[in-house]
Amino acid sequence: MLEIAILIFDGTTHLDSVGPYEVLHNLPDAEVNFVAKKAGTYRDKCGMLGLRADFTLDQVTAPDIVVVPGGGGADAAAEDTQITDWVADVHERSTWTTSVCTGALILGGAGVLRGLQATTHWRAMDALRNVHGAVPVNERVVRQGKVITAAGVSSGIDMALTLAAEVAGKEVAEAIQLGIEYDPQPPFNAGKFTEAPDHRIALWRSGINKTKR
Amino acid sequence: MLEIAILIFDGTTHLDSVGPYEVLHNLPDAEVNFVAKKAGTYRDKCGMLGLRADFTLDQVTAPDIVVVPGGGGADAAAEDTQITDWVADVHERSTWTTSVCTGALILGGAGVLRGLQATTHWRAMDALRNVHGAVPVNERVVRQGKVITAAGVSSGIDMALTLAAEVAGKEVAEAIQLGIEYDPQPPFNAGKFTEAPDHRIALWRSGINKTKR
Repeated sequence: MLEIAILIFDGTTHLDSVGPYEVLHNLPDAEVNFVAKKAGTYRDKCGMLGLRADFTLDQVTAPDIVVVPGGGGADAAAEDTQITDWVADVHERSTWTTSVCTGALILGGAGVLRGLQATTHWRAMDALRNVHGAVPVNERVVRQGKVITAAGVSSGIDMALTLAAEVAGKEVAEAIQLGIEYDPQPPFNAGKFTEAPDHRIALWRSGINKTKR
Repeated sequence: MLEIAILIFDGTTHLDSVGPYEVLHNLPDAEVNFVAKKAGTYRDKCGMLGLRADFTLDQVTAPDIVVVPGGGGADAAAEDTQITDWVADVHERSTWTTSVCTGALILGGAGVLRGLQATTHWRAMDALRNVHGAVPVNERVVRQGKVITAAGVSSGIDMALTLAAEVAGKEVAEAIQLGIEYDPQPPFNAGKFTEAPDHRIALWRSGINKTKR
């Protein structure tokens, strides 16, 4: 069995976890456990999407692969010692410890990133260095030994395919890529922070949709 | 208010809906309602991921945008008249009716695709024509009037960005693309069915992970 744990918390951005999940749950003998402080439904920041955590932190003690997503709630989670103690503990025994988006802040809070190159969502690159002692790198997927960090939100799919090849070989990773038909064709070329004009960054930061539930 | 309804059913592939969700919930004044036959948690085919539907079909009668995801349960959903009647009904008043992956089969079951060009996951292209009277097209996103269909699983992100620009303009769509850092960099070039070697298709079809929960 290949045990994969995906951490969930209040204010998770669910694409951060569902992207990697859709790749990793197809790995040979994989069992994926969504894990949180309590079992139950966890909402994203705007409250419109709820995802189920089936397991509590103390039920998942030795996953082979740990995936830590980010989101608006990641900053609080990175200061929640119940969460960061769990991450630090499972990291001791994991084969791979990974983050997507601001999940890197939670790895940072657990002391995992000190001295390592790492990436995260562009909004949090400074905190990686200033708070968590990492060396921020403007790359989509950064591997340092058994620690893999990925950039914002959608990057988790790229990270997971990289990881799938490490775990089960390139042919399996490619078959999964075919299965989820990951042949991305964005209609615009606007996803790269280092090339984004100021007005686009400002528009995103303004909060385009103020609706919450 | 921009009301967006995302259909959920047993055996949904959740990336089909969470991809578009992560784009569309950021649209100005958007409210996204996950809707199913009953409110509750819906599992994907392997049972490891549960996503919450907050609303029942009869509570959501006039969404502006309808998103129909696919998955292993889509074939059954396409023959479930409670679901297809709802799709046919909301389609009458929608501004946009969309599908991702084998969600196209459900649009087909609702009679929405008859005579239209459409796309779906590669496993279901024949059924589009033979069962639902559509004209299958090997493209990632196919627009026919107010009906937009997308290819397999991950294509929903591309579809939703296209739709976001139609609804709120290109600048908003580009800001959302930046926000979710959608700058895809797949480590392999294996996602396109028309270029896939037979052994890769066979490997996916064999079911790489037999584990179910």
